[in-house]
Amino acid sequence: MGKTDLDKVLQNYGAAWNATDASERATLLAASFAKDGLYCDPSARVEGRTALVAHIGGMQEGMPGALLELTSGPDTHHGFVRFHWHLRGADGAVAITGLDCCTLADDGRLQQVIGFFGEVPALQ
Amino acid sequence: MGKTDLDKVLQNYGAAWNATDASERATLLAASFAKDGLYCDPSARVEGRTALVAHIGGMQEGMPGALLELTSGPDTHHGFVRFHWHLRGADGAVAITGLDCCTLADDGRLQQVIGFFGEVPALQ
Repeated sequence: MGKTDLDKVLQNYGAAWNATDASERATLLAASFAKDGLYCDPSARVEGRTALVAHIGGMQEGMPGALLELTSGPDTHHGFVRFHWHLRGADGAVAITGLDCCTLADDGRLQQVIGFFGEVPALQ
Repeated sequence: MGKTDLDKVLQNYGAAWNATDASERATLLAASFAKDGLYCDPSARVEGRTALVAHIGGMQEGMPGALLELTSGPDTHHGFVRFHWHLRGADGAVAITGLDCCTLADDGRLQQVIGFFGEVPALQ
């Protein structure tokens, strides 16, 4: 998969988090997230694309007007990808910063998205 | 698995990268890395613990006196872990900084270690 394809996948994936219409989210995730993909962040473990469409809807209900933005380019090797993002609240302030570490499916869609929030803890 | 166990796993895993004796590396990885685990960074995809023992030996030959140090605490949820590290050359200067995103096996050892080098690319 070329860089352009990965950029397109991530663009569709990010747009899915901002789409308030469930059928639009389903279309965007169909183009970017495997049907049996896994999404997991500190707050939720979500199995499958259909469940992720619903999970994003729940996030939007809990945080109306939230906007997800990718804040770095993707760093990729051997079918793995990392990128940074943040989620702004309706007031425009950054509410959560995050890092997603992903595994790509053979067809280039996201098979696994593991999210981490905020900064890495300091060394103890 | 509790925090103490994860700390111990990561301590043994980090020590394995600094052990110049292959049998010592094998012992340290047996305590921290699954037998059929996957290690993958931008420079290498290494399948299995035995192959990782050899891979680390190759790194040490190419970079004598190198020292791996974990530089953050682990950030963990749902059996996934991230932490930062750096590799110092024999002169003490940091040669590579990295982030490892890991999956834990059910017994708490590392099942998958996906490493990324340096900073995440800027947004294009």
